[in-house]
Amino acid sequence: MHEIALRQRAHRAFTDRPVDEDVIRAILTTATRAPSAENTQPWRFVVVRDAALRARIGDLTARAWSGGGRAWAQKSLPSGLFADVDAGATGGVAAAPVLVVVSADTTACVPAVLGPSIWPCVQNLLLAAIAEGLGSALTTLATAFGDELRTLLDLAPTIAPQAVVPLGYPAVELRPGRRRPIDDVTTWR
Amino acid sequence: MHEIALRQRAHRAFTDRPVDEDVIRAILTTATRAPSAENTQPWRFVVVRDAALRARIGDLTARAWSGGGRAWAQKSLPSGLFADVDAGATGGVAAAPVLVVVSADTTACVPAVLGPSIWPCVQNLLLAAIAEGLGSALTTLATAFGDELRTLLDLAPTIAPQAVVPLGYPAVELRPGRRRPIDDVTTWR
Repeated sequence: MHEIALRQRAHRAFTDRPVDEDVIRAILTTATRAPSAENTQPWRFVVVRDAALRARIGDLTARAWSGGGRAWAQKSLPSGLFADVDAGATGGVAAAPVLVVVSADTTACVPAVLGPSIWPCVQNLLLAAIAEGLGSALTTLATAFGDELRTLLDLAPTIAPQAVVPLGYPAVELRPGRRRPIDDVTTWR
Repeated sequence: MHEIALRQRAHRAFTDRPVDEDVIRAILTTATRAPSAENTQPWRFVVVRDAALRARIGDLTARAWSGGGRAWAQKSLPSGLFADVDAGATGGVAAAPVLVVVSADTTACVPAVLGPSIWPCVQNLLLAAIAEGLGSALTTLATAFGDELRTLLDLAPTIAPQAVVPLGYPAVELRPGRRRPIDDVTTWR
């Protein structure tokens, strides 16, 4: 687990190698082992392999980025990190052969516990992808256009998209990212 | 990773065996490998080993439960699950030799991306605990009294408690929990 976690990075570039359905199923199965409030399991997955649909989701991501996120990030982030995030937002999502859209069934779970009932599942999905040799990333930009995303994916109004996770075999190997040391963020009592 | 994820359960009963500081540090280090929006790393940890302080956090949890959560759960959950959750809420948190309170630095991260910037870190913490042979659980009840929790832990007003994670060596081995099959929650496009 420690070693898998150390390898987690936001991948933006993928090879053309397709991802087998069995691999996707193994990853989703592990995603659903995550905890959720009272075991309500509010997660819903749409696995998008259709190229046209992936391109449209990529468009939503790029629009959300240019419509506010980009300006904020350019002002706030160190330039190297900005360049990386900018490249990912504009090209990374659509470049993957598979997108997994993770949504929450809002009828299953009160809003106060929706976060802790969805993101551990997304994190399991991301870690399981690493274990399968895949690259991935946690992206949420497209969910700024939740209604459009829902329409594209034929989701009911009660299903709220939370994340778009690109999956594919990485074109580039990435080193561990930078983190503040734990002593900077931990107190002992 | 798949096998570790399958072992994740909410532990309520722990042995008296203390948890070494090195083990806690390894778990926190892996927690910080999680992604966060623009790598803002908004997580802040308080490791609580002091027995009196743990008891007070346990009291907050029990109060949050009796003040609303319990009535809702008794009405909404199957009786077996309710009994388990009820036992955990009233006794489980204070029973652990270590509590890790995970908070978000609200100055580091806009509210829209706070969830996906905190819960993957909490999930890493929980999975790393399993890898170290520890039991744990994701609990959020005590954060209903965020101001009191902040006061107990001497946290700044900008630090928002999100979760209380008990850590200890499990007194009981638990089998994998029940989950809906992925075909019930997945569509393919």
